Amino acid sequence: YWSGKGCSYGAFHALMAEMRTLVGEPYNSIPSEIMIYGHGGGAGWGGLCGALNGAAAFVCLVCTKARADVIINELFGWYTEFLFPSDLSNQYAVAGAYGDNRVNEALGQNKSGSILCHVSVTEWCKATGIAVGDTKRKERCGRVTGDVAAKTAELLNAEFQGQFTPVFTSPQSVTTCGTCHGATGVKPYTAVKMECVQCHGNMHN
Amino acid sequence: YWSGKGCSYGAFHALMAEMRTLVGEPYNSIPSEIMIYGHGGGAGWGGLCGALNGAAAFVCLVCTKARADVIINELFGWYTEFLFPSDLSNQYAVAGAYGDNRVNEALGQNKSGSILCHVSVTEWCKATGIAVGDTKRKERCGRVTGDVAAKTAELLNAEFQGQFTPVFTSPQSVTTCGTCHGATGVKPYTAVKMECVQCHGNMHN
Repeated sequence: YWSGKGCSYGAFHALMAEMRTLVGEPYNSIPSEIMIYGHGGGAGWGGLCGALNGAAAFVCLVCTKARADVIINELFGWYTEFLFPSDLSNQYAVAGAYGDNRVNEALGQNKSGSILCHVSVTEWCKATGIAVGDTKRKERCGRVTGDVAAKTAELLNAEFQGQFTPVFTSPQSVTTCGTCHGATGVKPYTAVKMECVQCHGNMHN
Repeated sequence: YWSGKGCSYGAFHALMAEMRTLVGEPYNSIPSEIMIYGHGGGAGWGGLCGALNGAAAFVCLVCTKARADVIINELFGWYTEFLFPSDLSNQYAVAGAYGDNRVNEALGQNKSGSILCHVSVTEWCKATGIAVGDTKRKERCGRVTGDVAAKTAELLNAEFQGQFTPVFTSPQSVTTCGTCHGATGVKPYTAVKMECVQCHGNMHN
């Protein structure tokens, strides 16, 4: 993350570096820089969290589409409900284990409810009172990057040990709103797994 | 797109296939399947448009971060303002040039104002009255995939000919809302380039 290449590169590279050491090709021939654009939710646009973007790309290198879809769904769902940054990443920082002495303290934690960069970041900033341009916010995203890479490794290890069991269930609104707005509803115009009310409110109340 | 691997793979592969023919390595060693997860805005979650995701990954294979950021910003901005599917892709279909005889007709066009999959798709479905599960909606996304790959090639060709000139300007709301909510505002919690009002309305009126 702190290399200047950002969150999406960071999550992807963390997983790729292991594979280059353990396996070699084709991982040696795929530059981690391919995922740089994911930073800031896509060149700063605030869309898909870059850590998720980079991690999901790695999943597609090692899984079929059918399995990747299931594993990524679980990863994305976990992300929306997780308190970032993790206790473990905060403990690493306090112990000076990151080695950079940049922010050697535990950071406040928050659950964002969203896979979108600008929602994840803004909700955390509001909860902690830390500005988006602050080094501590960037450090938060650095720790999120590590947390997402670690979770991806966990899910993939479980998958290849035949022990992957998804636990995420879709938010209520996706089901409720989907009754009318989903593919089989009376206004069948929307396909989505993101929670609806967080952005749209309940427009029928 | 219609290979079963989807929009993100489709846009990435269109560009990679050219490079494999014209250049060879390292493009031969990077499987296009790395971008499959981008379909449906990320395994169906409705985030970043998969065609943009795949195209942006390609840009990062051939440009430095600094130049990729500028080119991708232009690509994303163009996408939000473009009438999809393009006249050209509609003409190809009417002429039977896609060769699959799946939907050999011109499809209705719409500008979505967003880089997000579920917004882009829903706005098009609402404008045309075509359901999200309809083959014509999928064909629309297939044509968007081709349109995005073609625009990316155009931008990159201009870049390498020293003729790249960005024309996209940020929406008014990003500037206006950013005065207070951006990095230097009184509530400095949000960094984003997506248009604000489309999802959030004007919450101060």
